[in-house]
Amino acid sequence: MTELSLDGGRLLGRIQQLGQIGRDGDGRLTRLAASDADKQGRDALVAWMREAGLDVVVDRIGNIFGVWSGVDRQPVLIGSHIDTVIDAGVYDGCYGVLAGLAVIEALKAADVAPARPIAVAAFTNEEGVRFAPDMMGSLVHAGGLSVDEALASVGVDGASLGAELARIGYAGAAEPGFLKPRAYVELHIEQGPVLERVGIPIGAVENLQGISWRRVTIEGAANHAGTTPMAMRRDAGLAAARVIAFLGDLAKASPTPTVATVGYVDFEPNAINVIPSRAIFTVDLRDPDEGRLQAAEAALAEYLSGLAAAEDVRISTERLARFEPVTFDPRIVELVEDAARSRGLACRRMTSGAGHDAQMIARIAPTAMIFTPSIGGISHSPRERTEDADLIAGANVLLDVVRALAAE
Amino acid sequence: MTELSLDGGRLLGRIQQLGQIGRDGDGRLTRLAASDADKQGRDALVAWMREAGLDVVVDRIGNIFGVWSGVDRQPVLIGSHIDTVIDAGVYDGCYGVLAGLAVIEALKAADVAPARPIAVAAFTNEEGVRFAPDMMGSLVHAGGLSVDEALASVGVDGASLGAELARIGYAGAAEPGFLKPRAYVELHIEQGPVLERVGIPIGAVENLQGISWRRVTIEGAANHAGTTPMAMRRDAGLAAARVIAFLGDLAKASPTPTVATVGYVDFEPNAINVIPSRAIFTVDLRDPDEGRLQAAEAALAEYLSGLAAAEDVRISTERLARFEPVTFDPRIVELVEDAARSRGLACRRMTSGAGHDAQMIARIAPTAMIFTPSIGGISHSPRERTEDADLIAGANVLLDVVRALAAE
Repeated sequence: MTELSLDGGRLLGRIQQLGQIGRDGDGRLTRLAASDADKQGRDALVAWMREAGLDVVVDRIGNIFGVWSGVDRQPVLIGSHIDTVIDAGVYDGCYGVLAGLAVIEALKAADVAPARPIAVAAFTNEEGVRFAPDMMGSLVHAGGLSVDEALASVGVDGASLGAELARIGYAGAAEPGFLKPRAYVELHIEQGPVLERVGIPIGAVENLQGISWRRVTIEGAANHAGTTPMAMRRDAGLAAARVIAFLGDLAKASPTPTVATVGYVDFEPNAINVIPSRAIFTVDLRDPDEGRLQAAEAALAEYLSGLAAAEDVRISTERLARFEPVTFDPRIVELVEDAARSRGLACRRMTSGAGHDAQMIARIAPTAMIFTPSIGGISHSPRERTEDADLIAGANVLLDVVRALAAE
Repeated sequence: MTELSLDGGRLLGRIQQLGQIGRDGDGRLTRLAASDADKQGRDALVAWMREAGLDVVVDRIGNIFGVWSGVDRQPVLIGSHIDTVIDAGVYDGCYGVLAGLAVIEALKAADVAPARPIAVAAFTNEEGVRFAPDMMGSLVHAGGLSVDEALASVGVDGASLGAELARIGYAGAAEPGFLKPRAYVELHIEQGPVLERVGIPIGAVENLQGISWRRVTIEGAANHAGTTPMAMRRDAGLAAARVIAFLGDLAKASPTPTVATVGYVDFEPNAINVIPSRAIFTVDLRDPDEGRLQAAEAALAEYLSGLAAAEDVRISTERLARFEPVTFDPRIVELVEDAARSRGLACRRMTSGAGHDAQMIARIAPTAMIFTPSIGGISHSPRERTEDADLIAGANVLLDVVRALAAE
């Protein structure tokens, strides 16, 4: 096949155009799912899809599909999302959707006649900031959540998703899941520091970490910091600190890519001269291997059990979230590597540390992801940035992979 | 000397009566310094002093003295405070003042003619909840703070102490420090668990711990908990946890009575899936020996320095408070031991972990304290309690010590 390249300038321009929609008076970008700003973003995307000659289909959960053309055979699906967090950057999600559109435009412009239809999707409420759960549109598409249950979701502002989608004109008629992809590819910024640190522009994402979230509550006894000898203390804060240090040591000592984070902590009464009676904190454990993730969970449980006796405290834990790791399709991962190689781009296999729509669609179709470097590893921030050259390189790799999959 | 005993029933009754003044609608006791409730408490105390035939003198900072009789020679001073924390118990401070009054009443009733005058003092704003600093009245009395500066103190409610004392009628005419004690004795509940645990009713307090308070700020970098490998993290929360665990180990391993407490902690942004960019916490170090306290401070500083490099974080600290340890007068401590022994009460020498008016008066007069057991070590709480028998025993030891000192 002769090498094709998509229109990088137009792609970059659209990312910036879409990134101007939903700015507040201070210039902060916020396009929460099914908000007025989301409607404007959707309108812009749909207009570009129509200009490109795509059939636009909206399903009942508001997922938007631009289809080229027909669904007589199972299509190759490219997707991501265009909703954002609060005070967001312009790349997260939008890059993958707009690159998907650019891929189809490039194939049409080159008069390529793929054996299969190609479609690009923008899934509803990936970020989950306004409505829970996150990755909702792709989860419903994959059959993991009923559309009626999802539409009944009440947002942090009290509005229901169903009513909001109807209000903004994106409660479509198609039944979620109507489009059964033959394969799914998602291009995304890494949202982590690895590719930039190692100076590699393309990540071939072979799996996605499993996640284990727990809330731990430690109960001791509040006592006077001056009058209570160390041996008579039941210090919930000290016990919590020992757990946090243990988790850091556990993950750092592990030869595997296990990560452990305690991001939230709350002491009571939280006063300088009172021994904490209660400490509540969260544990975020992730690993691409389910066995290792379970081993880390077991190590934590064992440590807590010993600690409760050693520090004379009561410890309870509550599961907040648990997702098993997702393994992507090895053949599509190889296609990503092949495409990078033939374009002279360094590439490395990697794990996605964050959740993506791809993990939901992986339930119903062979799936993989392509990552591009995030400068400083920063995401969910106005400082989120990826070099233009990397954005275009990643989109061209997506083009090659989709072209190969659609030729089958 | 024949053994005297004071009127224990009347003492217990007055503690309960005073403890009913300042109750809110939910029955919570709060008599903040120079409040309406404090005025009512002061009025009750002054009435009891007058009933006992004492000369009542109020100084410019509102300290109340009941003097028996005259100040031709340097008097023996008994003191404590009657202001309380929010939602307080009835014993803290009040016990020492009312026991002092009972001591004088017992000596008068027995027609003892002491060689020296005896006075009982209630010092203004010991708790420091409304106005800073705490132990203010005794500090001004000892010349450690000018009365004008103290009167200008603005409370948490915006009122000035000077105006409030005038409003409640306790801005007296006497110049603070007018009364130069020959000796000072303070009877107080322990506010810690030691005496109850070892089953000993009398503590002969030989010293008072030095206090070192610091605020520590650790700055790292906020990053995604899933996408940031352990080796690329600058986790302020993990670094803070290591410090808290280090301090716990330091104090527990020490053969000395060093205590270390981290009672307050605050993570930013404090979200489950974000590595903390900043952790702020307080350190409360106490030791009765100044050299050991300095050694603990130095050990902390050295640990922080190594940690900053190991975890790639920036650490700054700020001194919040620093008091050197106070050594009480050995002869008065012996008098306490003698009195306990002759009454058949077990007694042990101990250190005060909390601050008291005695530490201020120790600057200008030979001083010691007597402790009685706090059930469960609980104080600053409605659950603060001391057995009636222990309260009466402690007051009788005070009686013996004051009688001996006043005979000189």
